[in-house]
Amino acid sequence: MLTLFHAPGACSLASCIALEETGAEFEVTNVSFADGEQHKADYLRLNPKGRVPALVVEEKATESGILTETPAILYYIAQRFPDAKLAPHGNDFALAQMQSFNSFLCSTVHVAHAHKLRGARWANEQNSLDDMRAKVPENMSALFTMIEETYLGQPWVLGEQYSISDTYLYTIARWLEGDGVDITTFPHVNAHFKRMEDRPAVQRALRH
Amino acid sequence: MLTLFHAPGACSLASCIALEETGAEFEVTNVSFADGEQHKADYLRLNPKGRVPALVVEEKATESGILTETPAILYYIAQRFPDAKLAPHGNDFALAQMQSFNSFLCSTVHVAHAHKLRGARWANEQNSLDDMRAKVPENMSALFTMIEETYLGQPWVLGEQYSISDTYLYTIARWLEGDGVDITTFPHVNAHFKRMEDRPAVQRALRH
Repeated sequence: MLTLFHAPGACSLASCIALEETGAEFEVTNVSFADGEQHKADYLRLNPKGRVPALVVEEKATESGILTETPAILYYIAQRFPDAKLAPHGNDFALAQMQSFNSFLCSTVHVAHAHKLRGARWANEQNSLDDMRAKVPENMSALFTMIEETYLGQPWVLGEQYSISDTYLYTIARWLEGDGVDITTFPHVNAHFKRMEDRPAVQRALRH
Repeated sequence: MLTLFHAPGACSLASCIALEETGAEFEVTNVSFADGEQHKADYLRLNPKGRVPALVVEEKATESGILTETPAILYYIAQRFPDAKLAPHGNDFALAQMQSFNSFLCSTVHVAHAHKLRGARWANEQNSLDDMRAKVPENMSALFTMIEETYLGQPWVLGEQYSISDTYLYTIARWLEGDGVDITTFPHVNAHFKRMEDRPAVQRALRH
């Protein structure tokens, strides 16, 4: 059994879409950020990081436990359900390019976005948090310009092959409006976003 | 041919160690951060991100190009040189745990460290940069406490199997002293650090 700990709007949406794409059975447990559930003892026993996503895998003894971090969960889903063709299995270089894209999203793009509401992770003074927040639109614009011009294939991130990178890019692109960035200034990203919204798996994931 | 663009002291050391572990032929090109080479036109044409590491792969047409982002480069090295046994190939869950650890290092631990000298990525005012810098020891201590207590196996990150996660953890642990954190307060991390320093591949990598 697979259980995804998810918060609507959070980056766990990428894993939720990937699971929906596989057609596999899985359960979703919503973690209420509004109630601070991610910082409460019950959740911290499960995931000491106090974040989502977390994927609980209950299988044979050697493959049971909890997985955290979006790129790792996404690739686990892609590997476990190869028929869903969510990664370029068998092509090491293409696979590395996919992992590179996902790593960039988690370590740079998500982090840039996090300075809007999570600045207290890295500074204490209110002035610092305001300063960080003010810079978010500029940083997100610069990063999506780089994605638009350099890293985004057509019609999918990797080109012809749809992959877990598409679910992750879509998830983060959903944050642009709240970050004060107009997605239509990035025509390829915007077209990708619309293609994603047409997918039944995306529509199902958004209902969790 | 494989060419690693590297800066001594930077996170590219992890990829350099992994390459040394394989015994494969590769070249290292040092990028001088002191001269700001990573922001100059020649390097930006190669890697628009203006960072290291970058691994240039020149092979058959379908597998040539540039790879960026440490977790992606590390896993590419592990996949390409399976005899070096730098990843738990064939065990999807263990592999995902390795990727999760690497993703945590790049998106959380490296990012926490980067607020010491790279705060200008996320804020503009000098006061904000000072505030960020002051919080780095506390954040790095908290994250290494989590690594020590929850994520670090014995004798290696994954337990019995040495992997690319060991090269990455060692690389970041080298930053602790400069971050004002005493590594000896984390006995397992410290013992891991010493085991790494005994490895010939690590010693060779440090000479690049």
